[in-house]
Amino acid sequence: MSKKNAFYAQSGGVTAVINASASGVIEAAREHKDKIGKVYAGRNGIIGALREDMIDTSKESASAIAALRHTPSGAFGSCRHKLQDFTENKAEYERLIDVFKAHNIGYFFYNGGGDSADTCLKVSQLSKQMGYPIQAIHIPKTVDNDLPFTDNCPGFGSVAKYVAVSTKEASLDVASMCETSTKVFILEVMGRHAGWIAAASALAAEKAGDPPHIILFPEIPFIREDFIAKVEQVVKEHGYCVVVASEGAQYPDGALISGSMSKDAFGHQQLGGVAPTLASMVKHALGYKYHWALADYLQRSARHIASATDVEQAYAVGRAAVEYALAGKNSVMVTIERNKGETYSWSLGEVPLEKVANVEKKMARSFITRDGYGITQKARDYLAPLIQGEDYPPYKNGIPQYVQLTKVPVEKKLNTPFEI
Amino acid sequence: MSKKNAFYAQSGGVTAVINASASGVIEAAREHKDKIGKVYAGRNGIIGALREDMIDTSKESASAIAALRHTPSGAFGSCRHKLQDFTENKAEYERLIDVFKAHNIGYFFYNGGGDSADTCLKVSQLSKQMGYPIQAIHIPKTVDNDLPFTDNCPGFGSVAKYVAVSTKEASLDVASMCETSTKVFILEVMGRHAGWIAAASALAAEKAGDPPHIILFPEIPFIREDFIAKVEQVVKEHGYCVVVASEGAQYPDGALISGSMSKDAFGHQQLGGVAPTLASMVKHALGYKYHWALADYLQRSARHIASATDVEQAYAVGRAAVEYALAGKNSVMVTIERNKGETYSWSLGEVPLEKVANVEKKMARSFITRDGYGITQKARDYLAPLIQGEDYPPYKNGIPQYVQLTKVPVEKKLNTPFEI
Repeated sequence: MSKKNAFYAQSGGVTAVINASASGVIEAAREHKDKIGKVYAGRNGIIGALREDMIDTSKESASAIAALRHTPSGAFGSCRHKLQDFTENKAEYERLIDVFKAHNIGYFFYNGGGDSADTCLKVSQLSKQMGYPIQAIHIPKTVDNDLPFTDNCPGFGSVAKYVAVSTKEASLDVASMCETSTKVFILEVMGRHAGWIAAASALAAEKAGDPPHIILFPEIPFIREDFIAKVEQVVKEHGYCVVVASEGAQYPDGALISGSMSKDAFGHQQLGGVAPTLASMVKHALGYKYHWALADYLQRSARHIASATDVEQAYAVGRAAVEYALAGKNSVMVTIERNKGETYSWSLGEVPLEKVANVEKKMARSFITRDGYGITQKARDYLAPLIQGEDYPPYKNGIPQYVQLTKVPVEKKLNTPFEI
Repeated sequence: MSKKNAFYAQSGGVTAVINASASGVIEAAREHKDKIGKVYAGRNGIIGALREDMIDTSKESASAIAALRHTPSGAFGSCRHKLQDFTENKAEYERLIDVFKAHNIGYFFYNGGGDSADTCLKVSQLSKQMGYPIQAIHIPKTVDNDLPFTDNCPGFGSVAKYVAVSTKEASLDVASMCETSTKVFILEVMGRHAGWIAAASALAAEKAGDPPHIILFPEIPFIREDFIAKVEQVVKEHGYCVVVASEGAQYPDGALISGSMSKDAFGHQQLGGVAPTLASMVKHALGYKYHWALADYLQRSARHIASATDVEQAYAVGRAAVEYALAGKNSVMVTIERNKGETYSWSLGEVPLEKVANVEKKMARSFITRDGYGITQKARDYLAPLIQGEDYPPYKNGIPQYVQLTKVPVEKKLNTPFEI
């Protein structure tokens, strides 16, 4: 049997640095042409495998693959498609084996968050369950920073930096206008169940009393009267109040502040609307003039203000996935480990996938101040290194030069369409 | 009589580069210590003059004044306070003269937009109306780019760059997710009556068909059915659709898409909410999954991605105001003039303030495509130079280092409080 090809795909919500991981995978594979064949990228994640719809990355130039490192979003397309259990939909697994066999694929690199780790775990079990030899390695990615076992998740550092910088800038704006205009500014950020992104806004503060003054975490039940009293107190003390709210902030009974909305394929509620709801509460209770912002996709795609640490880690976990596969590993996720010592440094590790899939790491209570509206020094010490360094993309005509791949399709070998 | 002192103040919504103008004023004044005394900055705009609440900028270090060039928002505080007409509230004018006399102020530099130009004009008339000798020079500033006579307004280039970059990044995000998730993304940007900011999003597109696919301008009446048909057509063609909407987008009868809300001191409606309204329309009519973002203050305070051209111009108009005053001018606004020639270059000029005050420059119809949803090559040629160049602030610990002034107050000489 000739050397095996690799399948790589991106899954779940994309980030400013997931393409840096792709760059790491492809560059590392190209350095091991003696052991690994071509890297075929799935178009739109696992769906690309099921549809036999793949992109031949060997047709992309070295400079294009290098430029992925500074290009946000998912260059090969992402998806929100969850493989069902083996017992529920065996056809999907048989199809995967057909496609992998047809294209001599022996390595499976899946780049995503918790839901994607579940998909990667299921693929890794193909060898045991169905006798098809494959090594599946999960490459962590999620702006939510909620994967367990890894110290942090690639993608998070950059959204954290974006949110910290934006909070600092908008706060200066409010401070300069508050005498005769806006007194309360509310920024809504991502984070369904974990408040990591909202927590990062606190890095904007350089000393006690600096904004943001109030952070709302999904982990801390929201008490309206307490919140309103806090806003009033902050405005009296500082003249204005900056609030950063997680989209998943909720009442003690679990009801979302934003109200319930539609659900995605994983049963996740599609959120949005905490900021205007809070603004309306403030206006009603206190009469202050307010403004609010909802960063939405702007925050997770903001490669122009990416964290250099995050970019470096995203690239490194991609490379490591290839190295782990070549070392014979299967069914693991690459992890980032924080080394001991006063100065921040990190190294790479691994964890069995069955421990990772579908587990969410929320913020520890010790990371949140007693009143529930801020972060502790312990949290600050954890978060601060992750936003270090700037890694600006190249610009032309005032606009970042993000790469567009040629995306040459891999010739199909099966002539059977597959319904997702 | 000894040499005269200067009064400088910031007015209206602040920008990423208004402090660069302050830096230009103060540095130019320091270079002419033989002709001009101290620069006193009003705390919160004209209110600082009325309350005799001023900051002595001579107490700030040269490095702090230089650092204003890379610090967003209004370092001395801004305001939304409009002087009434001379005949309606003579007391305000008498108070201004009292304060100016007490502090030997002979130069008045006002840094703002159209409403502020009106205030500056009224102050410039103090000499004619009330015999107090003062030279009032207006320093243009507005993210809305709606001041007449000047080719463009300092503050606009940076928000334009932020919106173009953010549109590019968020569009890549949507493109990579659209197969199984979000198909329509809507970004709401500032612009009450003029669509300049929304227009700048088109600079994200490098070739025909690139996002943004639909831009909604306040200048073009919104027809719901036509908009929905256009969204559907774009999604069919490209798989997704990116919409950028001005906050002031409106129906043919002038009703705002966002609905009417509260009004500020100038009678401006406080807007916000076009994006969710459009998203709801799309969902209802076409059933597409959507996301939307509202950049709000993030866009006008985003000094981290400022246009180098904008920063340079903002600094230059500040310096020019001092030079014009020393040349004996009064009641003029500094303007930016685009020089003839294929390569973009600019110089400074002036226009009498009575021509400027309360006039808004909207987008010419020839800048908008026939279908009303995009910009023409003429508009692109006008806009593109304004976002050229990056001018990054210094960073420490991953966060931009924006300067906080010491703000030493000028000792009061009047003992009479003044009610605004």
